Amino acid sequence: MEKIVECVPNFSEGRRANVVDEIVQAMALPGVKILDREMDANHHRSVITLAGDPAAVEDAVFRGIATAARLIDLEQHRGEHPRIGATDVVPFVPIRGVTMDDCVAMARRLGERVGRELDIPVYLYERAATRPERRDLAYIRRGEYEELKRTIATDPDREPDFGPRRVGSAGAIAIGARPFLIAYNVNLATSDVHIARDIARVVRERGGGLPAVKALGFELKDRGIVQVSMNLTDFHTTGIWQAFNAVQSEAARRGVAVLESEIVGLVPLEALTQLAVQVLKLSALSVNQVVEMKLFGEGARE
Amino acid sequence: MEKIVECVPNFSEGRRANVVDEIVQAMALPGVKILDREMDANHHRSVITLAGDPAAVEDAVFRGIATAARLIDLEQHRGEHPRIGATDVVPFVPIRGVTMDDCVAMARRLGERVGRELDIPVYLYERAATRPERRDLAYIRRGEYEELKRTIATDPDREPDFGPRRVGSAGAIAIGARPFLIAYNVNLATSDVHIARDIARVVRERGGGLPAVKALGFELKDRGIVQVSMNLTDFHTTGIWQAFNAVQSEAARRGVAVLESEIVGLVPLEALTQLAVQVLKLSALSVNQVVEMKLFGEGARE
Repeated sequence: MEKIVECVPNFSEGRRANVVDEIVQAMALPGVKILDREMDANHHRSVITLAGDPAAVEDAVFRGIATAARLIDLEQHRGEHPRIGATDVVPFVPIRGVTMDDCVAMARRLGERVGRELDIPVYLYERAATRPERRDLAYIRRGEYEELKRTIATDPDREPDFGPRRVGSAGAIAIGARPFLIAYNVNLATSDVHIARDIARVVRERGGGLPAVKALGFELKDRGIVQVSMNLTDFHTTGIWQAFNAVQSEAARRGVAVLESEIVGLVPLEALTQLAVQVLKLSALSVNQVVEMKLFGEGARE
Repeated sequence: MEKIVECVPNFSEGRRANVVDEIVQAMALPGVKILDREMDANHHRSVITLAGDPAAVEDAVFRGIATAARLIDLEQHRGEHPRIGATDVVPFVPIRGVTMDDCVAMARRLGERVGRELDIPVYLYERAATRPERRDLAYIRRGEYEELKRTIATDPDREPDFGPRRVGSAGAIAIGARPFLIAYNVNLATSDVHIARDIARVVRERGGGLPAVKALGFELKDRGIVQVSMNLTDFHTTGIWQAFNAVQSEAARRGVAVLESEIVGLVPLEALTQLAVQVLKLSALSVNQVVEMKLFGEGARE
């Protein structure tokens, strides 16, 4: 398995487990691994993480989209999470032996096929976007399914990249490409949530801080401490070490110590070799120097 | 492939490639991967790295030993590297889902089989040793093949753990178990090799420094700098980050900066997650949180 793409389709079904089962079943093709599956009843949404051979993943997601379109009716769907479609968002993420451009090409090819074969409008987003404002998923999803349904035929800003200028009960889909997202939190030894919020504002890109970093400050009430919760949306731009250091030095300026940090969920091996290179001043460290990669990965020989 | 053992047999043949080919061929069993193969003509020695399913690796190494015994004659062997046998050393290294005790059991089982079926004396060493002094490979190999041949029948210290109290043309073998060895070098911004040697003496276990660290100071003449070259013989005891810090602070005390460092060859994923936990103050980081492990490793689902 030389080339690996990850895909994290979000489906607007978080309550009927049998529906999610059927969608996941449809995506279980040879060459594809289902890495994770999360259902949220309040959001009324499921997030499936799959990965594997690019062509197989692309085909699997098409089948998932077709199944969701058959089983989910947006007219009946109410949940906390914003959505425009039965399959709501489909991001392709390069993992190994695949470039961002490859993932953009996958997004476009899948989008064209969904429009043509399933008659569902498709908006390309993030790195696959065809208009600058569509890089932002929130812009595409403004007003959700209900507003899109009213305006898609007439509003020039609502013209889809592929598919018809009308929505049926399956709604529309945002399909795109983006880097791997690392969820990274730093806990601080204070109960003052304003300090966490302050630091979040300073370190995040939106506040002129670190590029490709989103951040929010939270209180962890049960522990009497606070947390700077970050999304590193492109660790090649800002890595875990830089994010940690930025929070630590902002905390120190405020007389607060870092208690600990945590990587939530998955992290690509390359983010760990990057960290090692930075902290140890390594001249280089290839992921192929990692024993497990020699055994399982691209460089493995029988 | 849930359980993985690495084995790094050393053979006393570094000149005839066809002999090494035949040994490697004999070890190429299903479930075993040949990760690396190094021949050194001056040392007259080859080092083969294989890994995979424990039972398959154990069987593969037995076949390699049998082949080496048939093709290599210690009476004809002269090289720079000390040796006692055609197959000279066989260390088993736990990589995944396998304990050090499992590797000790493998060493003993293989040793018993080699003694019984091949009539070759076997000395258990390192973690598999049955006498304290035999933990040290150099002790077992003192005087090499030539001295062992003279003394094995009469010297009580030379009594093998398995096999006959006499050596044939295949000599004897040290079989053992040890942790993964990380080769790690730190380069310093000075041309004074005494500083590197000084620091090596201070940081290594033998000098009362860091446990499970061997270190030497070298001059890198072509670059006009010096290097502290380390073997981390058990990274669970002393990890890369501690080794780096010890050298850096000793260098700083001498007014010398660290230029860079390098991990030579392979490194286990766990040594990188350990590093991340230490520098980021992570509460935890499992190797199963690494994307590639979800795809290839134990936790992978089809």
